[in-house]
Amino acid sequence: MRLLVINPNTSEEFTTAIQNAGDMVKSPETEVVYLNPSRGPRSIECVYDELLSCIPCIEILIDQHLEYDGFIIACYGNHPVITAGREMLIQPVVGIMEASLHLACIVGNTFSIISSGDRAVTMFQDAVRAFGIGSRCASIRSTSTPVLALKGADSSKVEELILAEARKAVLEDGAEVICLGCAGMAGLDKRLKSALKVPVIDGVTAAIKLMEALIGCEIQTSKRRAFSPLEGKEIVNLPKMFTSPYGW
Amino acid sequence: MRLLVINPNTSEEFTTAIQNAGDMVKSPETEVVYLNPSRGPRSIECVYDELLSCIPCIEILIDQHLEYDGFIIACYGNHPVITAGREMLIQPVVGIMEASLHLACIVGNTFSIISSGDRAVTMFQDAVRAFGIGSRCASIRSTSTPVLALKGADSSKVEELILAEARKAVLEDGAEVICLGCAGMAGLDKRLKSALKVPVIDGVTAAIKLMEALIGCEIQTSKRRAFSPLEGKEIVNLPKMFTSPYGW
Amino acid sequence: MRLLVINPNTSEEFTTAIQNAGDMVKSPETEVVYLNPSRGPRSIECVYDELLSCIPCIEILIDQHLEYDGFIIACYGNHPVITAGREMLIQPVVGIMEASLHLACIVGNTFSIISSGDRAVTMFQDAVRAFGIGSRCASIRSTSTPVLALKGADSSKVEELILAEARKAVLEDGAEVICLGCAGMAGLDKRLKSALKVPVIDGVTAAIKLMEALIGCEIQTSKRRAFSPLEGKEIVNLPKMFTSPYGW
Amino acid sequence: MRLLVINPNTSEEFTTAIQNAGDMVKSPETEVVYLNPSRGPRSIECVYDELLSCIPCIEILIDQHLEYDGFIIACYGNHPVITAGREMLIQPVVGIMEASLHLACIVGNTFSIISSGDRAVTMFQDAVRAFGIGSRCASIRSTSTPVLALKGADSSKVEELILAEARKAVLEDGAEVICLGCAGMAGLDKRLKSALKVPVIDGVTAAIKLMEALIGCEIQTSKRRAFSPLEGKEIVNLPKMFTSPYGW
Amino acid sequence: MRLLVINPNTSEEFTTAIQNAGDMVKSPETEVVYLNPSRGPRSIECVYDELLSCIPCIEILIDQHLEYDGFIIACYGNHPVITAGREMLIQPVVGIMEASLHLACIVGNTFSIISSGDRAVTMFQDAVRAFGIGSRCASIRSTSTPVLALKGADSSKVEELILAEARKAVLEDGAEVICLGCAGMAGLDKRLKSALKVPVIDGVTAAIKLMEALIGCEIQTSKRRAFSPLEGKEIVNLPKMFTSPYGW
Amino acid sequence: MRLLVINPNTSEEFTTAIQNAGDMVKSPETEVVYLNPSRGPRSIECVYDELLSCIPCIEILIDQHLEYDGFIIACYGNHPVITAGREMLIQPVVGIMEASLHLACIVGNTFSIISSGDRAVTMFQDAVRAFGIGSRCASIRSTSTPVLALKGADSSKVEELILAEARKAVLEDGAEVICLGCAGMAGLDKRLKSALKVPVIDGVTAAIKLMEALIGCEIQTSKRRAFSPLEGKEIVNLPKMFTSPYGW
Repeated sequence: MRLLVINPNTSEEFTTAIQNAGDMVKSPETEVVYLNPSRGPRSIECVYDELLSCIPCIEILIDQHLEYDGFIIACYGNHPVITAGREMLIQPVVGIMEASLHLACIVGNTFSIISSGDRAVTMFQDAVRAFGIGSRCASIRSTSTPVLALKGADSSKVEELILAEARKAVLEDGAEVICLGCAGMAGLDKRLKSALKVPVIDGVTAAIKLMEALIGCEIQTSKRRAFSPLEGKEIVNLPKMFTSPYGW
Repeated sequence: MRLLVINPNTSEEFTTAIQNAGDMVKSPETEVVYLNPSRGPRSIECVYDELLSCIPCIEILIDQHLEYDGFIIACYGNHPVITAGREMLIQPVVGIMEASLHLACIVGNTFSIISSGDRAVTMFQDAVRAFGIGSRCASIRSTSTPVLALKGADSSKVEELILAEARKAVLEDGAEVICLGCAGMAGLDKRLKSALKVPVIDGVTAAIKLMEALIGCEIQTSKRRAFSPLEGKEIVNLPKMFTSPYGW
Repeated sequence: MRLLVINPNTSEEFTTAIQNAGDMVKSPETEVVYLNPSRGPRSIECVYDELLSCIPCIEILIDQHLEYDGFIIACYGNHPVITAGREMLIQPVVGIMEASLHLACIVGNTFSIISSGDRAVTMFQDAVRAFGIGSRCASIRSTSTPVLALKGADSSKVEELILAEARKAVLEDGAEVICLGCAGMAGLDKRLKSALKVPVIDGVTAAIKLMEALIGCEIQTSKRRAFSPLEGKEIVNLPKMFTSPYGW
Repeated sequence: MRLLVINPNTSEEFTTAIQNAGDMVKSPETEVVYLNPSRGPRSIECVYDELLSCIPCIEILIDQHLEYDGFIIACYGNHPVITAGREMLIQPVVGIMEASLHLACIVGNTFSIISSGDRAVTMFQDAVRAFGIGSRCASIRSTSTPVLALKGADSSKVEELILAEARKAVLEDGAEVICLGCAGMAGLDKRLKSALKVPVIDGVTAAIKLMEALIGCEIQTSKRRAFSPLEGKEIVNLPKMFTSPYGW
Repeated sequence: MRLLVINPNTSEEFTTAIQNAGDMVKSPETEVVYLNPSRGPRSIECVYDELLSCIPCIEILIDQHLEYDGFIIACYGNHPVITAGREMLIQPVVGIMEASLHLACIVGNTFSIISSGDRAVTMFQDAVRAFGIGSRCASIRSTSTPVLALKGADSSKVEELILAEARKAVLEDGAEVICLGCAGMAGLDKRLKSALKVPVIDGVTAAIKLMEALIGCEIQTSKRRAFSPLEGKEIVNLPKMFTSPYGW
Repeated sequence: MRLLVINPNTSEEFTTAIQNAGDMVKSPETEVVYLNPSRGPRSIECVYDELLSCIPCIEILIDQHLEYDGFIIACYGNHPVITAGREMLIQPVVGIMEASLHLACIVGNTFSIISSGDRAVTMFQDAVRAFGIGSRCASIRSTSTPVLALKGADSSKVEELILAEARKAVLEDGAEVICLGCAGMAGLDKRLKSALKVPVIDGVTAAIKLMEALIGCEIQTSKRRAFSPLEGKEIVNLPKMFTSPYGW
């Protein structure tokens, strides 16, 4: 089984953190490649950032779609490349947010999500509603710090903030499970869990194990309705590669 | 009052149809410019198409954001550039789908949407739920034809199909209002209305009049939470223009 | 285009405030008449008040239904005459609450409503749910003052209370847009907007511009199902005029 | 225990049918008076009809509010006098629609409502949603006949139509319980039940027994928030009696 | 009319409290027997406890199903024996939680439930959602005390805690009606009502009066779909009595 | 990693089918034991059956709770032992229905469930709503055959019926993914998938892989709120073993 994990932002240190977390949980039989595009924003914190990162991610999917059994989009949220990837490909495409929420629903009645920055709160609310599991969400809380601070000099201070918000989610909002709302938080789950005494779920590891589950059950993306094969159409003034998903 | 209507696909004949419909309803005091990007897909029928059209649309918004009082994204659906535009700009940004649905809610208890192709059905369901007005939607029906057929040789046959589906929506699904689910259907509302005896709403005209309403009331996009000003960040290997929305 | 704005209560000073706000935003081509019934409660703050105001409003609609292209019911809430008017007439009938909420949904993800008195909170909750847009509503807050205080000696003190509640809605409840929950607040939107730095929407101006949008698009009330033409029936011991909506 | 059952329309034959049904089920200790106003529409089939019937009903409530322990509004639907009565009075006020639906929820997972005319379908949908129990409603079906036909020459033919629609509700829509959607259907429940082999609930009898339950438990209308006591206000050019609910 | 009230836990003092409350409200014509199983947990505070109590309750239902016109399960919550009883029997089966909530919906827009222990909060949330009336629920609050403390030495202290939480529900959560979330609270409603000035509903009395209403209207459990007659099947190594509900 | 799969009914042939399906997908490192209780109903098709199977399953959980890293309840539905198990244990407890639905949500927008018998339809509707993912469910369809027919002489005829209903779900109801609604259908997924051309998910394999994912991520059941540790209490006339979950 070969998986490709795409970090849609251009920060290598995030990709490294993702790889460290992923390699810790993957089965010995699973081969995982981790990469990020070479152009685009350093972090993804709004829809504008998401859109800047889409074409570079799509290029990776087009180039490498024959090489892997599954694709993970390692950006916490409902990144539009997840849906586009499902339209383009037959292999499963898993986002790390979805993955963490589905696992959370198995081990608790309610979950809360801790995001880095404030504007992710709205994006995550929309995503949770779009996934159709809004009634399980106790709260979405933010540390009010930029995503990049997670890997900066003050990373331990940021970790304190995450712990503080997670604690409020548990004590005040009724959260039974905490989901870490950023790929850059990969690796924090163990420490937080022992501090909070509730399950803490990192999306990257959740996505890798969920992908192994799907592939282990030989479940691929449905090609009926929402993600049916793309029909051919003319594209104007764009590189020819972008027409190939219409045809394969 | 100066408005920019962006048709995100690259079909000039759609832009012309949009212009014809828009110019019919705009107030004499309103100046409207209609355009489409010079690169991208000829029609937008899936998320993959949407994403191909995003960067060209964003470039237009960046280039011309000082020239207009409001921006209309003339693609039926929850096109991601609508949200990105609200993040980037203070002026109102209106999508033609939203516009048609909000007007429909004033003149009937329920609406149905008639789309061209089948896969738009799922996209529109997601959009209606994301707008938070799912309970007013009686049905979403499709003519099962490609969008481009609307302007092809068989356009009158396609019009028959739209009428047939709209009639079923009224008679079988309980629709009180019909919304035309494609910018390329602009101009059909009058004929369908006289055949169906219910209000038929074209998104392009709805969006122009709704924009005049917003600007007439001096209502701009909220810059709290969801669409708060974009904070600066590094962008790697992309043209410098894409950093400007972070700063202005 | 000729519009009739009916203030359903009997306070002339409210009608004047409504007229001042409306005339500021209406298009030069639009002719607007503002009036209130000559009998009924001085303010409308409960369903009992609403019902006392219905017959006088219905008389106005029957008397003048041939004179106007659209009718605005300038009472914030889901006043039953809005629905009755849609049953009686083919012209659009717009309530100021609906109008403000639909515009709010275009410029923010969430809105809050500030009401005068406490019992409006429940009425507005029911109305928002009835409109089917409850998921966009961040909160409904009240200044706990009678409606008539808005035009009394302490009106500036009341304005302070409105500002205070609106500020809490923005800072504590996550509101991105503020809707003014009383026709008598018409005219306050500008001052509050500059204090709060978020869009503030007055229902009267929203309704006039939305009505211009509907009429500009030639959209009338659907006569299918909910608002289908009234069928004739016998009425006992009531003035003959009340049978005329059955027949016209 | 003394109850007043108000039939809000002016058809004596409906009041008689209601009385016959009610007297069959009331406890021996319960004294019930049945009446209808002397002016207003002969049947209530739209919001316009409802509003014509409000003032006559309110007059009855004001005149007789000291004489009874509870008030039943015997019009199937969310008649606005139910809410106004709760605002005006401390005694319980029960509508026959609500009563039938709450009993239905105890003996089946789902219910369907059979209405006389088509436009009640929309009104009942709104009512079911307003009551907050929409998820229990399998369907709302109509016999497409005027309410008054229930007591006309063809009443047995109408009964056949009700049976036919109820059967479809059970076989096609998944209804486990049938609710009779008109006060004028009082008395049909027994015959339909034996034909359909599912519970058939008549709103009039349900309301009388539910009222006995409330009064037996000494439960009165809450005077917090929604139905808090009416505060005094000036009323212009209306009979003085209409100010009395503000004060008592 | 003969009713059986089953207290599913094994605490006689609860059964006595239930009997005292029930006998106060039952009609003179109604004969009520109160009992509890002779084995099982002393109180029911989690699903594990519920399951331990099921077989003893089922045995009672099987043994005595011919003796009564209706069965009340006097455990606050969605105890699984309520559903099983409806599957097994044609007579109505009423749970005290449902009963209290349905009556609450008639006399207020919103209700809150006061539970003894914390974990009931989650169970009651699930139950309210399962009943399909979640939108009427203002809050569920807990006194954080074990159920058995209600009948212990400190029962008056527990009553203070209930009053304190109920007061917060009214003042902070917007509750218009209070429902007592434990059979063991039977009898407290009168005192709390006079302290709180809102309706306070005890589930035991609500269930008895609601059952009298159902039986008075000759409404039994629907045998379509959810509660259709049990089909015969082999049972391995269980007493023969458990096969009898399949056959009768 | 050691897993225990409990088939709560007493049909060995079902346990064998479950084992065959499970062993096909489990990782080589995972050790799985499959068993069923020695007393109880031969199949589980209603809540009454569920309750008969609870005590035998609870005995297994108590006896063997130290031996395994996770427990799978192999009965399609929201079997009450799933919740009780989560209350009793720290290890994850997974039901096969939940497992199949969560995987389905990753590879399609909508799923349909095919049940054996009719009454499961209502039980599955309740379960899907309880899981909080009702909006993703396109339909629940039944083959109207007893569960035991799946392993009887006519099993290939039953398979045809499943295929026929699944096809209708795809073509008429908009299902993008099919979930097999019975543990006894384990093993059919491959054949149905090649006939239907959409993903077909068997709950047993889904649960085993999902459990491997949870344990691989070191995620256990949350012990906050819903599933917090059981507090000690007296149990009357039941075997002493049933008190042990209170204490451990």
